[in-house]
Amino acid sequence: MPLHCSFPASRAERAQLAMALEVLASPKPGNVDRCHDYPETRIEHFLVSTLAARASLEAIEARRAGLGRLIEDAVGATSCHAGGNTHFGAFILLVPLVYGGDLLGTCRAVERSTVEDAVAFYRAFALTRVRVNATDDLDVNDPAAMDALRDRGMTLLDVMVHSAELDMVAREWTNGFALCSLGARALLADPAPRTAIARVFLSLLASELDTFIVKKHGSALAEETRRRARAVLQGGETVESLDAWCIEHDVNPGSLADIMIGAIYLALEAGWAWDS
Amino acid sequence: MPLHCSFPASRAERAQLAMALEVLASPKPGNVDRCHDYPETRIEHFLVSTLAARASLEAIEARRAGLGRLIEDAVGATSCHAGGNTHFGAFILLVPLVYGGDLLGTCRAVERSTVEDAVAFYRAFALTRVRVNATDDLDVNDPAAMDALRDRGMTLLDVMVHSAELDMVAREWTNGFALCSLGARALLADPAPRTAIARVFLSLLASELDTFIVKKHGSALAEETRRRARAVLQGGETVESLDAWCIEHDVNPGSLADIMIGAIYLALEAGWAWDS
Repeated sequence: MPLHCSFPASRAERAQLAMALEVLASPKPGNVDRCHDYPETRIEHFLVSTLAARASLEAIEARRAGLGRLIEDAVGATSCHAGGNTHFGAFILLVPLVYGGDLLGTCRAVERSTVEDAVAFYRAFALTRVRVNATDDLDVNDPAAMDALRDRGMTLLDVMVHSAELDMVAREWTNGFALCSLGARALLADPAPRTAIARVFLSLLASELDTFIVKKHGSALAEETRRRARAVLQGGETVESLDAWCIEHDVNPGSLADIMIGAIYLALEAGWAWDS
Repeated sequence: MPLHCSFPASRAERAQLAMALEVLASPKPGNVDRCHDYPETRIEHFLVSTLAARASLEAIEARRAGLGRLIEDAVGATSCHAGGNTHFGAFILLVPLVYGGDLLGTCRAVERSTVEDAVAFYRAFALTRVRVNATDDLDVNDPAAMDALRDRGMTLLDVMVHSAELDMVAREWTNGFALCSLGARALLADPAPRTAIARVFLSLLASELDTFIVKKHGSALAEETRRRARAVLQGGETVESLDAWCIEHDVNPGSLADIMIGAIYLALEAGWAWDS
């Protein structure tokens, strides 16, 4: 037994810490944070999912299976609460990031993903409720889609390329995890780590269109959210009024929350002193 | 890898869940909760300590050492943040509860504690900052105290008996973990589990003198806190005004928070459906 503290001492532990720090950061307009729950999804669900993810994260770090199967396992292992989907999008990012070890290793891992990874990824959707748009014959809710994946020889990276335009989390697989890296650099550069996560989240909200909002409400409301986040940065609106507006319009930037978890994880890997 | 969720599947995981649920419950007058941090100790510190406790809790469940050494290990392993003491008192309860498996096993374990357990427990104080009153020659901050323990042949249970009058956490060791059990029964009987923790905490605050408040401020302020908690139960004061009064007077009922963690753990062991 180690007598003195070494937490976080592994990539799995840094991933757990990233998941916890993200949901605890406040204020995050529209998302679950210390000051706001949704009726069906509460902060407890995110933290129970974080605790429940331990064995899966260790399996990812040890590369005990391929990326698709590892995502499927993590999603299954963390759906142990009544709060619905909490970390599906986060695992799409954390699995390759933890598996790869560094960004180069991560990019090599996603390039080597297989058709069986894609099939396992589609199976993961059956384990939880995740918002997707059924735009084509690769609908994740259609059992025949798995046959289509095999027929076309589509790897998990191919699936992400296919989804990249409409899904900013999938897009990270295709662009070297650009937004996660951008967020990590912003965290590392921020002079006040204890409040940096909420600040970096707001800056991403002001610069990016959250594709979860687009899927749920269309691009007009997503554009309006971005415009208002810019107004907050420029002092024309308060973050509290943006939060109230988001809640009133059922706008929750869930994809940017996933991106933030990836960003916090990368910052922790780079030695970010979150508690200073 | 298990595909479907089984969390919490072990005593160690139920202890982690109890630690997380306790700190997330709101409102808890005077204590860290979703709506209130202390300047030096924030909710992040409690949850990081919860994550960092995993290996120690598994060591406790596997009985890899004696009670004193297990407390020392858990305190050391969770002092990995800048927030000071977060779970020292909780481990004084969780270690025998997790080790024992059930209340009978727990009571047998504390009866079998040794002088070396007492010495290890005293060493644990050096790992963190814990409020104690130096009332006698068994001052935990005095290195000579360990010699005194050995000279007198005091076991860890003897130390708890010695401390029971002034410390309600130590008292649990001497009375069959009476308040933890009372709290667990109250949680199990509560018709609304999602808000039950804050309610049971308030009822304990109205019935018990928190000895942490006594040590810090004297018994008059502890009595006043209890009187005001009763007024909240009777509708004469709001829980929000009690919380504001506690914060204004630097009153934080830290020992009852420790007791609540033990209570939540026992309730979870009994199958409490916290998420229903």
